[in-house]
Amino acid sequence: MTKPLGIRPLRARDRPGITRILESVGNFTPAEIATALELVDAWLATGEASDYYCLILDASPDPEHTDVQGYVCYGPTPLTESTFDLYWIAVDRASHGKGYGRLLLETAERDVRRRHGTLLLIETSSQESYGSTTHFYERAGYALVARVPNFYRANDDKLIFAKSL
Amino acid sequence: MTKPLGIRPLRARDRPGITRILESVGNFTPAEIATALELVDAWLATGEASDYYCLILDASPDPEHTDVQGYVCYGPTPLTESTFDLYWIAVDRASHGKGYGRLLLETAERDVRRRHGTLLLIETSSQESYGSTTHFYERAGYALVARVPNFYRANDDKLIFAKSL
Repeated sequence: MTKPLGIRPLRARDRPGITRILESVGNFTPAEIATALELVDAWLATGEASDYYCLILDASPDPEHTDVQGYVCYGPTPLTESTFDLYWIAVDRASHGKGYGRLLLETAERDVRRRHGTLLLIETSSQESYGSTTHFYERAGYALVARVPNFYRANDDKLIFAKSL
Repeated sequence: MTKPLGIRPLRARDRPGITRILESVGNFTPAEIATALELVDAWLATGEASDYYCLILDASPDPEHTDVQGYVCYGPTPLTESTFDLYWIAVDRASHGKGYGRLLLETAERDVRRRHGTLLLIETSSQESYGSTTHFYERAGYALVARVPNFYRANDDKLIFAKSL
């Protein structure tokens, strides 16, 4: 019995796969990976009450097994009327180029719209290693709306991308 | 026995005064006041481990009593090398114009420098009611480095001020 390539809420058994993906990507420092997993754990502990929503892309054809290929984490931005933040999105390094990232992002956008979100923000680093990431956002319809110089460290700015939904 | 106008770490008995000040200022919504108090409570529960540092300005001449006239809350920005956020600063409406805000801000800046912080960020709203606030930051040496359009709601942008320390 097979199942289609599916995006579904992240469950506890997916956590090792998320760790593997975050480490495979190569963009993230250990502190960033720890922070990403904190949001995953908040979601696993309290679900939607955490205000962090986590979805995974499961490529296993076997409904009894899980093959996590990517995940996305987003949620409402505190103190705003209808703004959401896309906190993390990552696809296994070995599966880049298959459109999985775009599929995760579009699924998150649909869910944000369903929750009456009108603006989705993505913060990222200006560092060279993030170059392909920023092109990914631009192709998906995000505009660079702000830059905070030297945010992460000297000569490493924070870039803020935004898309109206 | 009198004591000089002093700035000192916030203690549990100062909390009602902080609530009164946040309500007196008139700029803050109930949700913003609740968020400000969450940071105060994190500081009171775990101190520096919370990564929120809270100082108050106590104008009482009597060492046995407290007269909270203002407070500031700041801390290291997660995932950055040496950036800090100034999360909240507020002075009792009745004491505006006495330089208390400047005193609190300069004390916070000295403490951030002592902790090897090199950049202090302040996020605020572009709403009209915040006009005097933004002039206050500009006079204190902060530059508007970024703006996120429609962040809080339609036509209410997030302004990001920064000062190199």
